[in-house]
Amino acid sequence: MSTSSPQRIALIGLGTIGISMAALHLSRDGNIVEVFDTRPDFEDYISKMLPIYMGQAPSTSSKPNPDAQPVPSLVSSGRLRIHSSLESACASATIVQEQGPENVDWKQSIWAQIEAVAPPSAHFWTSTSGIAASIQQLQMRDKTRLLVVHPFNPPNIMPLLEIVPAPGTSSERVEFAREYFSVPGSRHRPVVIRKEIPGFVGNRLAFALLREACYLVQEDVVDAKDLDTILMASLGPRWAGNGVFESYQQGGGEGGIRAFLEKLGETMQNIWDGQGRINVLGDEGTEWKEKVISQVDEAYGTLSTEQIQEKEARLKEFVRIQTKKYTPDGPEV
Amino acid sequence: MSTSSPQRIALIGLGTIGISMAALHLSRDGNIVEVFDTRPDFEDYISKMLPIYMGQAPSTSSKPNPDAQPVPSLVSSGRLRIHSSLESACASATIVQEQGPENVDWKQSIWAQIEAVAPPSAHFWTSTSGIAASIQQLQMRDKTRLLVVHPFNPPNIMPLLEIVPAPGTSSERVEFAREYFSVPGSRHRPVVIRKEIPGFVGNRLAFALLREACYLVQEDVVDAKDLDTILMASLGPRWAGNGVFESYQQGGGEGGIRAFLEKLGETMQNIWDGQGRINVLGDEGTEWKEKVISQVDEAYGTLSTEQIQEKEARLKEFVRIQTKKYTPDGPEV
Repeated sequence: MSTSSPQRIALIGLGTIGISMAALHLSRDGNIVEVFDTRPDFEDYISKMLPIYMGQAPSTSSKPNPDAQPVPSLVSSGRLRIHSSLESACASATIVQEQGPENVDWKQSIWAQIEAVAPPSAHFWTSTSGIAASIQQLQMRDKTRLLVVHPFNPPNIMPLLEIVPAPGTSSERVEFAREYFSVPGSRHRPVVIRKEIPGFVGNRLAFALLREACYLVQEDVVDAKDLDTILMASLGPRWAGNGVFESYQQGGGEGGIRAFLEKLGETMQNIWDGQGRINVLGDEGTEWKEKVISQVDEAYGTLSTEQIQEKEARLKEFVRIQTKKYTPDGPEV
Repeated sequence: MSTSSPQRIALIGLGTIGISMAALHLSRDGNIVEVFDTRPDFEDYISKMLPIYMGQAPSTSSKPNPDAQPVPSLVSSGRLRIHSSLESACASATIVQEQGPENVDWKQSIWAQIEAVAPPSAHFWTSTSGIAASIQQLQMRDKTRLLVVHPFNPPNIMPLLEIVPAPGTSSERVEFAREYFSVPGSRHRPVVIRKEIPGFVGNRLAFALLREACYLVQEDVVDAKDLDTILMASLGPRWAGNGVFESYQQGGGEGGIRAFLEKLGETMQNIWDGQGRINVLGDEGTEWKEKVISQVDEAYGTLSTEQIQEKEARLKEFVRIQTKKYTPDGPEV
């Protein structure tokens, strides 16, 4: 079955990520989305939230979105089917995608249940941010079907999907997921991670930077708000346009990243040797926590709906600009 | 002397950063810029390069820039003065700013020479990325005058200036530099770093992420190009709009960063414990280098002028959007 043909996707668990995924799947002509969640107000909830995510409006927007179809018309056309049992949701699915709690027991149990009721050909995707497919599949009979499809917050705007197979996941199923998210016109950028590793890649990179950030605040080198300003005034816009490797390939001039590593090697080793080895759990190396939390609370408090809306509008523009073309001889843009 | 009054800035060393700084200082009405460099073709070079940087055109642009004043007219109006000796360049300066080689002996020697010829009230700024003011000033008599003003590449677009005083630098001189770069209408965002530390803050954060990136490539978790895609499709745009602390304050919902650290603590500690401890110098832990270099070379080769122009045009837009206002009830932007 080709990924360009319409799919029938059963979504299990409709929190923020699930709703966002429902909107994504419904944006493809012909797809049928089957939804199941155990919350008591499920039908009301999805009627209220889904239109907000469809058309990629900022998720907190209170404006009516002209592109969004009301849920009753999606239901009456048969494109959206609201289920009250896992079995009926999965019965005819070509893809089953799970966005449930981040809990090992729950994940292992739900996949065994799904395997028992879904067609044998159906693809199994989990949106987990931390529990590897090889752990989740322990109670399944067929270990070739499940893989991680990890979106990044906010999933209705962020292009990244980390696709992380277990060692036993079949390569055809990995390729199917990658192709599904990279159809022409999609804003999404799926990347296949070759090995299971805690945090996958995006969060490993983020937490490496966060660890040094917390250390610098602990050491009174800079306060939390000034550190954020530094990041926004330099690395953020740089990495929105260039990856880290591409940046240093350019930074090294004609010699590329090799020249960069030679020129900056001493500074880099010096920094690496002096990196903060703070901890977030345990009794040692956690003194930074109260200092960081109080500085961050003081700097930002609780973000208002208006602030979040403004940030999402800006984020959408950053993502839009990433794929915009600039003609060297055209007018300045 | 107030920072809003015109200054007379002697720039010593006119490479990329020096030229960019000259353009910045000349963009302020009334400033006089005195330039000195030992390169033999200095006058031709500055006549060619300065107009490109004035008006903030992408630095590799070959188009004429309508905002740029030709160097002869800047010279005849007395706003730009080209010197053939350090002494004459510094003689009447209110600020002396150095962008010379990253070499301890050279820096120590030049500041002793500058101190001998500049007015006693002049402010001394070094654009170094790695040699602390407390080291550079060792041969100076007055240890209260020198501080680091570290720009970020490309300095004609990036808003960040890291201001890093030595322990003995007078607080008035720190405040003068901060105010100078934060006048209304300036695109620049100066941040005062409270303690001297190798790499200051921006490069420490960048190299912490780079270390983990190189480790993940070494371990075959992901290749260099896919890692760049991951960064551009998630953390880059996030950190262009939000700092890392603000992101997690928002990510924690009503409980803020405290709730985030509680919820993600186990994953975070797991990632921190497993971070790659690779090295860039020495014999151990450097196996990643050839793998990373060859993957980066293969992915990007040498970037063409057109590619760099396009990247700079995009970077300028990211920076512009950072300060754009979005009205929640206005039209979608």
